[in-house]
Amino acid sequence: MKAVVYEAPGKKTFATVPVPTIAQPTDAIVRIVKTTICGTDLHILKGDVPAVTAGRILGHEGVGIVEEVGSAVSNFKKGDRVLISCITACGKCEYCKKQMYSHCEDGGWILGHLIDGTQAEYVRIPHADNSLYPVKAGSDEEALVMLSDILPTGFEIGVLYGQVQPGDTVAIVGAGPVGMAALLTAQFYSPSKLIMVDVDDARLELAKKFGATHTVNSGQGDAVEAIRKETRDGVDVAIEAVGIPQTFDICQRVLRPGGHLANVGVHGAAVNLELQNLWIQNVTITTGLVNTNTTPMLLKTVESGKLQPEQLITHRFAFKDFMQAYEVFGNASREQALKVIVDNQ
Amino acid sequence: MKAVVYEAPGKKTFATVPVPTIAQPTDAIVRIVKTTICGTDLHILKGDVPAVTAGRILGHEGVGIVEEVGSAVSNFKKGDRVLISCITACGKCEYCKKQMYSHCEDGGWILGHLIDGTQAEYVRIPHADNSLYPVKAGSDEEALVMLSDILPTGFEIGVLYGQVQPGDTVAIVGAGPVGMAALLTAQFYSPSKLIMVDVDDARLELAKKFGATHTVNSGQGDAVEAIRKETRDGVDVAIEAVGIPQTFDICQRVLRPGGHLANVGVHGAAVNLELQNLWIQNVTITTGLVNTNTTPMLLKTVESGKLQPEQLITHRFAFKDFMQAYEVFGNASREQALKVIVDNQ
Repeated sequence: MKAVVYEAPGKKTFATVPVPTIAQPTDAIVRIVKTTICGTDLHILKGDVPAVTAGRILGHEGVGIVEEVGSAVSNFKKGDRVLISCITACGKCEYCKKQMYSHCEDGGWILGHLIDGTQAEYVRIPHADNSLYPVKAGSDEEALVMLSDILPTGFEIGVLYGQVQPGDTVAIVGAGPVGMAALLTAQFYSPSKLIMVDVDDARLELAKKFGATHTVNSGQGDAVEAIRKETRDGVDVAIEAVGIPQTFDICQRVLRPGGHLANVGVHGAAVNLELQNLWIQNVTITTGLVNTNTTPMLLKTVESGKLQPEQLITHRFAFKDFMQAYEVFGNASREQALKVIVDNQ
Repeated sequence: MKAVVYEAPGKKTFATVPVPTIAQPTDAIVRIVKTTICGTDLHILKGDVPAVTAGRILGHEGVGIVEEVGSAVSNFKKGDRVLISCITACGKCEYCKKQMYSHCEDGGWILGHLIDGTQAEYVRIPHADNSLYPVKAGSDEEALVMLSDILPTGFEIGVLYGQVQPGDTVAIVGAGPVGMAALLTAQFYSPSKLIMVDVDDARLELAKKFGATHTVNSGQGDAVEAIRKETRDGVDVAIEAVGIPQTFDICQRVLRPGGHLANVGVHGAAVNLELQNLWIQNVTITTGLVNTNTTPMLLKTVESGKLQPEQLITHRFAFKDFMQAYEVFGNASREQALKVIVDNQ
């Protein structure tokens, strides 16, 4: 089969590799129907994630059809259409038992990281009963690919950890796919203001279509001042969806007393936390890798039409053109790309 | 009357000043029976709190007897014995209505800070109905002085914000009065391990008497390693009760995935937050000034004998010897002092 294989920092190939086979009774083999590329894949390709070694198939998102299941899999059978979660969960360890699947002792984020991933014609999914979700007939499968990672990430680590409440003023710093996912799902809770912050005016325009009530271009002028101007004494919730010290800094400076800073961004460096100001402010700062424990909830919001994640898709490619998809996604600003779909129908 | 008056960084006097009078209908004048000195007063005297200006009477803790009330005070009358909260609450603003009295728009921490405080024979308490608590006949009034600030601070900002749960492993960094208050009140929730960390062996010995299951002298060897050795994969809760970058650093390095870092310390400088490690760890970091919304709850635990805050008192002084009390409290390690009581009977 064909797959996107990580070779070395800066180097990937679209290679011919063996089709995966069942290794454990809890495994399933899934034929990929639709997949995508994540910002995290670009981080890996830069060499930021040293745990990814040469020969690893990338990707942790997708929708597919079960090809084969191990003897211990009971929720799925050959032919079932499934959503693949970016998080693998054994369901049995201490972390799984408190729904912290992100830290599953025999799983977590391993797909396209520690084991081969979804940017392939077939993928092996460990602990299939806890790591796959059934796709209802007639579903928009492209929309569902957004539920493998970015929607639950923006929702759980941004909106839920940030404790967005009705009437809240919310700033989201970073209008990439995950920031947009936070923007869409924050609206479940009826905040009064949704201030979207980015350096890209095209993305800010899109954010307005997705429900942002205010936008701030942080490349032009003082973003902290611009955000504070829209509030009485700062925001209730600041969601960091970039992963660099400058954007974290905006977030820590716009919080009102009692505010919540939900860090969603993947950081490669330490940040300066202004505790000399914040110690007295009764603020909460959270971090996290997605647990995907809200995937069933999000599936219902998609089915009901409340959430329309297909809005995030800007480009579509055939599976054979995977490298072109990377070229577009890797130049997202130039290409005005948000999420790309790669189709293996 | 006599009072401890801040003059300039490094300079205080035990001066003769006018007795305060009712300024607002919601005020009470309280004759101080017992008061104490807080680490915060030492910070002020170092010049760390520039909002405190020359001539300010220090102190924000105490028990006393109501001398006079304004026309709008309905919960208290002359002769009532009262506990003075370190936090003044109007009860009417947005913050008060969510029990964030620390950020009351006409109060918060103002005693001995923005208005004259309790290290005096008399003190004016604004918003008396919401800022005083009745003291039951027969109460140990020295014990109750510990409820003006340190017990609710350790409990609310350490234990509650840190979300201590039964079975948890808890590290408390700093065995001063507030760290000890966290140690005592963490035991309400039956953690499995309470690891106390300090550089002072005498305080660590005392911590054992107060319920610490393990102690670590962070001045001798690698405290992070010593704490982690007592846990499987880090602590559930780390409580920072010092207020310097080194102790914050210990806390951020001992958290397990999903752990909580409750910062209680008063910080004068920024800290280095290791987001490159923590972004993926699903941790929560909280900060805060005490709200004293748990004061009624803590009063019940003292009445029932579950909490014995008098354990924290190491020295007692007559009111006329206030400067000597400062001398002892200001050299707490040398004097093996924790909390001092100043008695104006």
